[in-house]
Amino acid sequence: MKENEYQIIEGGITAPQGFEAASHAAGIKYEGRDDMALIYTTTPAVSAGVYTQNVVKAAPVLWDRAITENESKVSAVIINSGIANACTGEPGMNICEQTAQAVASAVNGQKNQVLVASTGVIGMQIDVEKIVAGSKALLLKKQPTKEAGTQAAQAIMTTDTHKKEIAVTFELDGKSICLGAMCKGSGMIHPNMCTMLGFVTTDAAIEKKALQKALSTVVTDTFNMISVDGDTSTNDTLVVLANGNAGNTVITEDSAAYQTFEKILHMVCEYLAKQMAGDGEGATALVEATVMNAKCKEDARLMAKSIICSSLTKAAIFGHDANFGRILCAMGYSGAIFDQNKVEMYYESNAGRILIFNNGVAADYSEEEATKILSEPEVRILADMHEGDATATAWGCDLSYDYVKINADYRS
Amino acid sequence: MKENEYQIIEGGITAPQGFEAASHAAGIKYEGRDDMALIYTTTPAVSAGVYTQNVVKAAPVLWDRAITENESKVSAVIINSGIANACTGEPGMNICEQTAQAVASAVNGQKNQVLVASTGVIGMQIDVEKIVAGSKALLLKKQPTKEAGTQAAQAIMTTDTHKKEIAVTFELDGKSICLGAMCKGSGMIHPNMCTMLGFVTTDAAIEKKALQKALSTVVTDTFNMISVDGDTSTNDTLVVLANGNAGNTVITEDSAAYQTFEKILHMVCEYLAKQMAGDGEGATALVEATVMNAKCKEDARLMAKSIICSSLTKAAIFGHDANFGRILCAMGYSGAIFDQNKVEMYYESNAGRILIFNNGVAADYSEEEATKILSEPEVRILADMHEGDATATAWGCDLSYDYVKINADYRS
Repeated sequence: MKENEYQIIEGGITAPQGFEAASHAAGIKYEGRDDMALIYTTTPAVSAGVYTQNVVKAAPVLWDRAITENESKVSAVIINSGIANACTGEPGMNICEQTAQAVASAVNGQKNQVLVASTGVIGMQIDVEKIVAGSKALLLKKQPTKEAGTQAAQAIMTTDTHKKEIAVTFELDGKSICLGAMCKGSGMIHPNMCTMLGFVTTDAAIEKKALQKALSTVVTDTFNMISVDGDTSTNDTLVVLANGNAGNTVITEDSAAYQTFEKILHMVCEYLAKQMAGDGEGATALVEATVMNAKCKEDARLMAKSIICSSLTKAAIFGHDANFGRILCAMGYSGAIFDQNKVEMYYESNAGRILIFNNGVAADYSEEEATKILSEPEVRILADMHEGDATATAWGCDLSYDYVKINADYRS
Repeated sequence: MKENEYQIIEGGITAPQGFEAASHAAGIKYEGRDDMALIYTTTPAVSAGVYTQNVVKAAPVLWDRAITENESKVSAVIINSGIANACTGEPGMNICEQTAQAVASAVNGQKNQVLVASTGVIGMQIDVEKIVAGSKALLLKKQPTKEAGTQAAQAIMTTDTHKKEIAVTFELDGKSICLGAMCKGSGMIHPNMCTMLGFVTTDAAIEKKALQKALSTVVTDTFNMISVDGDTSTNDTLVVLANGNAGNTVITEDSAAYQTFEKILHMVCEYLAKQMAGDGEGATALVEATVMNAKCKEDARLMAKSIICSSLTKAAIFGHDANFGRILCAMGYSGAIFDQNKVEMYYESNAGRILIFNNGVAADYSEEEATKILSEPEVRILADMHEGDATATAWGCDLSYDYVKINADYRS
């Protein structure tokens, strides 16, 4: 997609017309910070969602899936951080229902127009009074402002070190369309369908079927290609709401506008996915692995993802150590079949690019130069397989002392 | 197997009759320590081997597999630590051949009677003069003593903190049979067929086909059920040598003695596998996960292994934090299908046993008591699925700061 076809603007979920947001300190688990957020659309929106493939699904995942899979439109999303409402049995499902009912009653709507999402500790029960009171407070505070969107993006953070949001505008049949988005995710990140919690809002008019198709398509090469620690969460949720306020001709799967919409959505999701990978728990570097000229797309994906998942590769990058054998090893156990003698491998960053492996043996590279390249905050690993024309990219982060520290102490 | 059917004795690979060993400081990569080891059998032995399933196989894996898969008997195994001879192309294969040829010439044998094994950094070339000189020195130093076996077990260590060896005697048709074994492994441990380097010697008389069957069978529930970091090595090798010196009736697949032999081999392999898991890089605890009453054996294996592979679970155990949600999460993304509401889960160690999850929700347990249980050097996680009668156990370790430290600095 050419850069002059779209424009990145400031803001996030409230950038599209008709969307409002709010955040609130409900004391679900954290003290002294906002821990609930609301996304609200003045015009009920068409929705699409992708959710964790983990057999153990959190209650909100079950609740939202039932809604986004049917034809009802969505008016609001209530999100809390601190407690994940996962492994909480029937009481956990009741929390979802009572939260949605409280919101629906306040806006004269139906409970199946309200999505809920939770992130935090697994196994703890949420206090229903706190989340219901928090939901009502959010409805009173909601605003269409940029600040309200940003505060919502902050309220959903757990171990994230910074908020993750983006807004993009582009044109479709003479109408200006806007996409806004926010997400959170830092640990337990190895999405299988999508990531921890991600929300995209748009004022585009689009058919539900086309929206779900676009979302499912872009997730494969964006959120599903990142990993922080190989742990696929119980709560992974990515939802898109499209309220049609832009007034464009309704996008269908067959319309020319569909391709444009999908490309913009891909760009937005890739941006958020990279933000999450780079903000992995304890991370000092974003690691991007691109496998090119592989036999087929699936092999390229397997190898790229295996590289960024390898604990040993991640630790080596934390140590700025050009230990390329660990990368080849990770490609080798990925499940893809290849000829190691054809592999040509490079390290690359803003400090330069260096050939490290070729013709089945180590290249004659300078360790000093490699260390310099690996000391940058964004490091790329490029593997040219010379066996076909398929390419895939995956994103992860290094493995640091702080990952251990954060996760040894997380609940305390 | 009842304990009175066998006896664990002191020693390792030299315990069986006819086996000798040696170690030597060849300066392959380390300075000031032995880095080469020899296993020698005065009577050429029947051999069996299992090797890494990684597509990127180290040169010694290719060399050994070609030998153990055919009918030739084995006289010697040459092992070096420091450099793995992996990702070394044609020069790497030449190293194997020249090493084997040097040993064969010195003992009037054939090069295809000599196995080689390497462990250490991937991608570096071994100096052929050093390894050939080292091999000759080993032949001059070889001894049938317990000490020689122990020194060999020490020489093959890399980041291991202690040697791993065991010897067992048992009776077959009135003859005393002995099995000795040693292994090494601490990082890049996620065997897929078998582990880093493991060697079992026995004076039992056994057909090659029966030996390979026994080895392949026991590996599934022993070495293939451990993981330190999810990285399946390029060098995983487990070899058994049986020289027949005990004089028992040759064991065949159909003989009653086969079951006894397989049980003893299982016990030896389980012992070594647990030793490796507990000595995982940076580990402060051995973690044992048992999944019982699962629908089928494969599901039980998937779930047990997923638990001990989860970075978040490992970090929680390092922090003595009873964060059981991470365990359920790991079971959930293992690939097995189950009903979370039927799961009954316990923590257990020498400090006690505690129910932590039941009926789909957290049990009413004491965090203080859980922390006490998790502070022991051996921690067990028990998950009763209540869905069938299949059981599997997997072994791993916690994830500590030292894992990161060791692997960020490994080559320097």
